[in-house]
Amino acid sequence: MFGFLRRPKVRIDIPRLRPREDTVYPKVNLAELTPEVLPYLGQAAYVQLAIFEEVSDAIAAAPSVATKQALAPAASQALDKHERLVAEIRRRVDDPAAVIEPFTIGIDRYRAVVKGADWYEQLASVYLTAGILDDFFKLLAAGLPGDIAPRCITILDAETGRRALIDVLSDAIAADPVLGSRLALWGRRVVGDTLLVARSAIHLTGNPESDEQRIEPVFTEMIAAHTRRMDQLGLTA
Amino acid sequence: MFGFLRRPKVRIDIPRLRPREDTVYPKVNLAELTPEVLPYLGQAAYVQLAIFEEVSDAIAAAPSVATKQALAPAASQALDKHERLVAEIRRRVDDPAAVIEPFTIGIDRYRAVVKGADWYEQLASVYLTAGILDDFFKLLAAGLPGDIAPRCITILDAETGRRALIDVLSDAIAADPVLGSRLALWGRRVVGDTLLVARSAIHLTGNPESDEQRIEPVFTEMIAAHTRRMDQLGLTA
Repeated sequence: MFGFLRRPKVRIDIPRLRPREDTVYPKVNLAELTPEVLPYLGQAAYVQLAIFEEVSDAIAAAPSVATKQALAPAASQALDKHERLVAEIRRRVDDPAAVIEPFTIGIDRYRAVVKGADWYEQLASVYLTAGILDDFFKLLAAGLPGDIAPRCITILDAETGRRALIDVLSDAIAADPVLGSRLALWGRRVVGDTLLVARSAIHLTGNPESDEQRIEPVFTEMIAAHTRRMDQLGLTA
Repeated sequence: MFGFLRRPKVRIDIPRLRPREDTVYPKVNLAELTPEVLPYLGQAAYVQLAIFEEVSDAIAAAPSVATKQALAPAASQALDKHERLVAEIRRRVDDPAAVIEPFTIGIDRYRAVVKGADWYEQLASVYLTAGILDDFFKLLAAGLPGDIAPRCITILDAETGRRALIDVLSDAIAADPVLGSRLALWGRRVVGDTLLVARSAIHLTGNPESDEQRIEPVFTEMIAAHTRRMDQLGLTA
């Protein structure tokens, strides 16, 4: 009931929402849609590894040492989260890689789609998609049984180290309106792909109507948080 | 008197030495050849960043999630060392990047030369060249003034996380004699390039004879340590 390979044939319309002040999700939760513990952990762990790899790639291609250094915490924080999620898997099974492996093809395909054509698009993708996916896996965690739920939320809520991505991007956007309008389009594009990935990770109950009633407000909140991130970059969502 | 751009026109002969048990350098030290503190720290910091980037690149191209996970500590340890060395620079000046930047072109050129033609050559390069450069910068540190010397040695002596590189490489070499003979040649090749980089980082006194007398035993020990690393991989140095 999950798996990034099986893309639902759904067109996701992205409403334009005004930014709010805080990222709070009081009204919605995905508890009934949460997959089993191991698939949850496997996907969440691979997403963090993917964030690490994308940031590392951006570090390698960064235009200066100062930028490399500024981006480094985002890489190390994602790797730390990956390792802590792997430790949770290892508490349950001997071979964490076997739990993660089924999700790699779908996530890698998604990564190729949202990679971007240049360094700025890549950086914007990392910042925006990692933000959406962090939010999503935190929301999903609420449905995990026992103390694994708060532990996962603690892991995913830790410092992202992505402040530097905002600084680099918003400086570049402020200096170049053409880049700004290109990245605004790009930001609108990656949110759709990312929500499809999120959707494929949800455990559907089999009742389409009640599933949609649960999913829709959650996605609306996730898009609102995305809009706030776009605003931080100086982009119109 | 240092700088990777100015490659000395020296042919370095690599003697074949038998492995010893431990990496100890009792007889030799580079104290008089150590550059000033800031250039030392700038080069050492960028070398660790380069190791991080090379390992990250190998993680992104790794054939399985299990291998990615096994390699992750080598990336995070190198990044941690980079950040600790940058913190040492920041204790002295406001802009660490400006201290590091002059060394990037030379080191990046060297990295391109020792990158390797495939994933195994890349992995062997990281393991072998990082080992030589760690040894070298530890030896150089002895000539730094005050408590900066022991602090740098502590940073560079910390866990490398590279055990997994040995495991991945020695398994592959044991399974494929053709790969083994290719990597043996490759390992001999990268040591020469790496010693030239090390040589360019040395502060020469201007007396070629006494400089050579100091450098030669140090390089002999570094090559002996390299030979032990080749042995660990199952390769003849």
